[in-house]
Amino acid sequence: MEKNEKKYVTYGSCCPGTPGAKKDITTCCFMLAPMTDRFVDVILEGLKKVDTSRVWTETDRMGTTYRGRRDDVIDAVEACFVHAWQRDVHMTMEMTLTKGCPGDSDCDFKLSDLEEKANAAGIRDIHFPADCRWSLYPLGTDQYMKGIADVVNHSIDLGLYRRTGHAGTILQGDVQDLFAYFSWVFRWCEQHFSHFVMEISWSVNSPTPEE
Amino acid sequence: MEKNEKKYVTYGSCCPGTPGAKKDITTCCFMLAPMTDRFVDVILEGLKKVDTSRVWTETDRMGTTYRGRRDDVIDAVEACFVHAWQRDVHMTMEMTLTKGCPGDSDCDFKLSDLEEKANAAGIRDIHFPADCRWSLYPLGTDQYMKGIADVVNHSIDLGLYRRTGHAGTILQGDVQDLFAYFSWVFRWCEQHFSHFVMEISWSVNSPTPEE
Repeated sequence: MEKNEKKYVTYGSCCPGTPGAKKDITTCCFMLAPMTDRFVDVILEGLKKVDTSRVWTETDRMGTTYRGRRDDVIDAVEACFVHAWQRDVHMTMEMTLTKGCPGDSDCDFKLSDLEEKANAAGIRDIHFPADCRWSLYPLGTDQYMKGIADVVNHSIDLGLYRRTGHAGTILQGDVQDLFAYFSWVFRWCEQHFSHFVMEISWSVNSPTPEE
Repeated sequence: MEKNEKKYVTYGSCCPGTPGAKKDITTCCFMLAPMTDRFVDVILEGLKKVDTSRVWTETDRMGTTYRGRRDDVIDAVEACFVHAWQRDVHMTMEMTLTKGCPGDSDCDFKLSDLEEKANAAGIRDIHFPADCRWSLYPLGTDQYMKGIADVVNHSIDLGLYRRTGHAGTILQGDVQDLFAYFSWVFRWCEQHFSHFVMEISWSVNSPTPEE
């Protein structure tokens, strides 16, 4: 390709503080990693069991993306993780949950007008312990450390907090309680920040003993 | 635990714009996920082959952390990824590379005064293609979108850019070229931002065909 034919990106023309999408769109990108020779089946079975009728979805080499209403997106990714979980398989999941990017736009989304969540009833009786390392990144504001402390302190109140690691907070608890907490954090952030990103690394059935 | 005995975190007393660590410390937290029944051996063999004499290191249930000089930390995590790579194993690695957090402190680090990198000579002839989904989060500034566009455009110049995904940029290339690019981005960010985080999801040997 000739130099003068290159198509450069121009996020610099975005307006920080103003979400690029005008509609109320939440994005979740995630990547399951079941550490077993049967990884293809585990991932595809998990994805297949999710009712994705209320979110836009795409799966490629780098994982799966859901876009839609906040509650529908979180419901769908929780369902995928819970359905992929197997008692004897160590699995991690990297999950990015975000809203308000100035570079986003009103494309690739579904906004349902149905009240109840599509997957909640089917997964609410499935419980297992999970470990998380997670970080919150509120963008475009210098008041971010106070906000991070406020949401971390809520995890202390809920009994999910284990410790503050380098570059992230370590949580542990029942998968349902952890997803409920992250859903609370997301709603909290919607009230306080124009653009924010939650990066959550999940781990289940780790053979490494706890400290 | 009684409510009044709870130990809350107080990042809110940090000073945004001022790194908490006064020394020149880079942090990398990463989690390897080889999708094979032999995952324990693959991870431990990879970790063992890294010369960690120039970084502080800790491995627990949530992965491994290296802290030290920028070049030593990036050299060590690249060596771990390259040594863990196996021709027939699909593997992902989630990697957080960061500097300047107001909540950081001068603890858990090693700052070597040796010029050359510990692992570079041992890995420079190992080449394989890798896919990445990555995001840059400059914190505490409203000028972040322009900075992100500038570094993404450099990946276009280098021929590593594939496309802009939802909530991240998709890169593809030789593992050595990708690490060299991320090292360049890190140095660029040191010049432009007080606190920044790079989140990089790596994938090798994916059985999913390219679009």
